[in-house]
Amino acid sequence: MSETKTLAAYVVENRMESIPADVRKEARRAILNYVGCALGGSPDPAMDIAIRALTPYAGKPVAAILGRAERTDPLNASLMNGISSHVYDYDDTTPKNYIHPSSPVASALFAYASVHPVSGRDFVHAFILGFEAESRIGNAVYPAHYDAGWHITGTAGVFGAATAIGKLLGLSLQQMIWAIGLAATQAAGIREMFGSMAKSFHPGRAAQNGYSAALLAQAGFTAGEHALEGPRGFAAVQAARYDLSKITAGLGEDFDLRANTYKPFPCGIVNHPTIDGAIQLHDEYRFAPEAIRAVRLRVAPLVMDLCNQTNITKGLQGKFSVYHGAAIGLVRGKAGIQEYTDEAVNDPAIKRVREATTALGDPAVTEDQAHIEVELMTGEKISRFVEQSLGNIHRPLTDRQLEDKFRDQAELAVLPSQVNRLIELCWGIDELDNVHELIQIAVPLAHHRQTVSAE
Amino acid sequence: MSETKTLAAYVVENRMESIPADVRKEARRAILNYVGCALGGSPDPAMDIAIRALTPYAGKPVAAILGRAERTDPLNASLMNGISSHVYDYDDTTPKNYIHPSSPVASALFAYASVHPVSGRDFVHAFILGFEAESRIGNAVYPAHYDAGWHITGTAGVFGAATAIGKLLGLSLQQMIWAIGLAATQAAGIREMFGSMAKSFHPGRAAQNGYSAALLAQAGFTAGEHALEGPRGFAAVQAARYDLSKITAGLGEDFDLRANTYKPFPCGIVNHPTIDGAIQLHDEYRFAPEAIRAVRLRVAPLVMDLCNQTNITKGLQGKFSVYHGAAIGLVRGKAGIQEYTDEAVNDPAIKRVREATTALGDPAVTEDQAHIEVELMTGEKISRFVEQSLGNIHRPLTDRQLEDKFRDQAELAVLPSQVNRLIELCWGIDELDNVHELIQIAVPLAHHRQTVSAE
Repeated sequence: MSETKTLAAYVVENRMESIPADVRKEARRAILNYVGCALGGSPDPAMDIAIRALTPYAGKPVAAILGRAERTDPLNASLMNGISSHVYDYDDTTPKNYIHPSSPVASALFAYASVHPVSGRDFVHAFILGFEAESRIGNAVYPAHYDAGWHITGTAGVFGAATAIGKLLGLSLQQMIWAIGLAATQAAGIREMFGSMAKSFHPGRAAQNGYSAALLAQAGFTAGEHALEGPRGFAAVQAARYDLSKITAGLGEDFDLRANTYKPFPCGIVNHPTIDGAIQLHDEYRFAPEAIRAVRLRVAPLVMDLCNQTNITKGLQGKFSVYHGAAIGLVRGKAGIQEYTDEAVNDPAIKRVREATTALGDPAVTEDQAHIEVELMTGEKISRFVEQSLGNIHRPLTDRQLEDKFRDQAELAVLPSQVNRLIELCWGIDELDNVHELIQIAVPLAHHRQTVSAE
Repeated sequence: MSETKTLAAYVVENRMESIPADVRKEARRAILNYVGCALGGSPDPAMDIAIRALTPYAGKPVAAILGRAERTDPLNASLMNGISSHVYDYDDTTPKNYIHPSSPVASALFAYASVHPVSGRDFVHAFILGFEAESRIGNAVYPAHYDAGWHITGTAGVFGAATAIGKLLGLSLQQMIWAIGLAATQAAGIREMFGSMAKSFHPGRAAQNGYSAALLAQAGFTAGEHALEGPRGFAAVQAARYDLSKITAGLGEDFDLRANTYKPFPCGIVNHPTIDGAIQLHDEYRFAPEAIRAVRLRVAPLVMDLCNQTNITKGLQGKFSVYHGAAIGLVRGKAGIQEYTDEAVNDPAIKRVREATTALGDPAVTEDQAHIEVELMTGEKISRFVEQSLGNIHRPLTDRQLEDKFRDQAELAVLPSQVNRLIELCWGIDELDNVHELIQIAVPLAHHRQTVSAE
C-alpha cells in the first residue's frame, strides 16, 4: 500500500482509545504552549496589517481569532492564528525535523472549533493525528528539504492542518487521500522570508490551505492519489533525498509528539544554547555591559547558516542573529519578548555588545551546544560551554515553566483572570464538552473591549 | 541591482505608451482566448464542487465569476476563474517554458475589475506586465524546475497575478518587492496532480494567492527583499539549475507575449501534433474506425513522460493520453471539448482504436512533431509526419480560428447574442472606459438565469 493511502487510512480509522496517556499529556502541553504563543503574538503589527488587508475579503464574522476582538470566517481565522502563534518564533519545535509543529495544526483546529461544536477529546485526538502526519512527512524529507531552503513548517504544516480538519469532518478514506493531495500541491514557504513578517505567514497559510484542502476533498474535489510517493509527488519534487518509510514506520506506536520541545526564548532555536550560556554568565558574574570588550562564539555550522544577521535595526531581525542573542543574554540576563522589540535591538548597550561579538561555525559543536568566551575590558577572559540547551529534549521545560511562559505572553492580550482560567482549561482540555468554552476566554472579553475602546 | 528589485521597478514604473502595438494586439488575442476558456470551463463539475465547498467561507458576494450566476468575494472569484479557464487544459501556452500564462493573471484581473472600476487600457497594461513577469521568472527556472515535477503554471503564475494586481493597486517599489516576496513564498503546485481536478486548482490558487500577496504588501506586510535571487529564494529552492539573467534581459523590449500560442485542442499541448496528424489522416482517407487494426506513434520523449496514460475511464485522464488523442483524431476527425468527456473516453470505437495504439519516444522527434502510422485491417499502412503542429508559433491560430474556438466554448455558458458581443468587446478591450462593461456580459444574464431556473 502506498504511503499516502497508509497514512490516510491511519488518520481515518484511528480511535482515541489507542493513543497512549503520555502522548495525550504531551498534547496538552503543546496546546497550552500554542495558546500562549497565539495570545502573545496577537497584538503584533503583522496581525494588525493582515487583518486590515484581508478583512474586506473575508466571509461571515463567525470565527474567533485567538487574542483578538475581531471575528472573521474560519479559513481566515486559521491564517491569523497561524501568524500570531509564530510571529515571535516562540512556538514549539520537533528537533529532528525543525518543524514548528503545533501552529499549522492548532491554528486550523481552533478556528474550526470556534464555529462548530467539538469535544475536547475529539479536538485533542485530531491535534495528535495532524501533528503526527505533519511531523512524519517532515521526517521523510528532512534534512535535504530543509537544507534546500524550504521552511518546513509551511510545507509539512499544510498536511497537518488538512489531516486534522479532515479527521473532524469525518472524511472517508478516498476524501482523506484527496485532502492529502490538495495539501501536497499547496506545500510552500521559503527560508528567504526569514526575518520578515512573511515567515509567520507560513504556518498561517498552511493552516488555512490545509483546512480548505479538507473542505474541498469532502465536497468531492479530486486530487492525485500518490501525493507523497508519486514520481511527481511531494517528496520527489521537494527533496533531493528522502525516505518515505519514515512516514509509516511505527505508525500508531511511535509518536513524534513525545519528543516535542518548547522554546524558552522567542527566537530561532539554534540560538538557544548561546542565549542560555550568556544568561548563565550574566547571572554568575553580574558584570556591567561596559565591562565587556569582546565576545567570541563557537557554534554549530547551522547557526551561521540561519542566524548570521549582523546589520540589525528591527526586532524581527534580532531573532535571526546569534550576535543579538549573546548580547541580550549578557546585558539583560533574559531573552523574552521585550528583548526582540525594535527598541531592544537599538538599545545602545545591547548594540555595542552585539557588535563586539564574533562567531565561528565549528562542525564539532552540535546544535544543542555553544562555546561562549567573554573578554572583559580588564583583559580577563571568562567562558562557558553549554552542552544541552534549556528547552531541548534533554532539558525540557517543566509544566511550571510552561505556565510561566504562558503567563508572560497571554497577559499581552487578555486579563489576568482569563490567563489563570485558560491555564486550567488547557490542562483539562480533553474533558471539555465543547472547546468553545476555552476559546471564548482566549479572546478579549466584551467588558474589557469596551473599557479599552472607551480609553 | 537585484533581479527582484529590477523586475519590481519595471512593473511599478512602466507606462502603457512604451508597450508596442503588436504586443497590445497579442494581449487582446490572449484575453479573447482566456475569456472563452473561462466560459467553456465554467459549467464543469470541478467548478460546482469548488463553489459549493468554499462559498460558506467566502466574503461579500460582490465579484463576478466568469460564466457563472453566483457571485463571491474577489479573492475567491480569482480562484474560480482560474479553475474554469484551465479545467479543460484549453488555455494558452508560452512554448519556451510550458506555462499556461494567461489564466493566473487574467483570473485575478477579471475578479478585481468586477468590483473596481478599471479602464480597458489599464487592464490590458496590467495583463501584459503580469504576463511578462510570470513568463520571465518561468524562463529563469525552466527546464530544471518543470522537469523536477513542478506545475510551472502554478509556481510562476502566482508572480503574474501579484504583479498585475500590484500594478492596478499602484504599489510603491517597496510594496511591489514585498508582493513578489509573498508570491515567491506561496509558489506551489506539483505535476502529480495531472489528471485530477487539482491541476486546474493550480492557476486558480496562483491567481488568488498573487492577488492577496499584492493586498498584503499594500498594507505593509513585509517579506524578504531577495525573493527571486536570494540563496533561499525561489530560483535556488525550486530549480536545480537556473539563469536569473532571463528575468531582466531585454526587459521592456522583448515580450514573451509575442510568442504566446493558443491550443486548437483541449488537452496537453504535447499531444497536439499527434492529434493534428490523426485528423489529417481521417479527413484525407475517411476510413471507418473498424478498418483500423493498429496505430503506431513516434513522438518526442516528453510525450511519454507526460501523456502515457493507458487505462482510461474518465474524460480528464484522456487529456494525458497520447493514445486517446490519436484515437479521437482518427475516429471522429476532431478533438473538441466533447471528445474529452467521460462518454467519449468510453465510446467503444474510440476505446478500441486507443487500445490498438502504441507509442515510442524518439529523441529525434521534436515536441512540435509526430509520426503516425495506421495499419488497416487490409494490411495496408498509411502514415503522416507532422512537422509543425497547428497552434504552435509557426502555425498560429488566426483571429478567425480564435473566434471559432471562443464560440464553441462560450456557448456552453452564455447566450449566442452575448457570445457575439463578447467577441467584439474583447477585440476592443483597450478602448473600454470600464472593463465591467465586458464582465457583465460574461455571466449568465438575469433574464436567462430566470428562464433556466423556471425549467
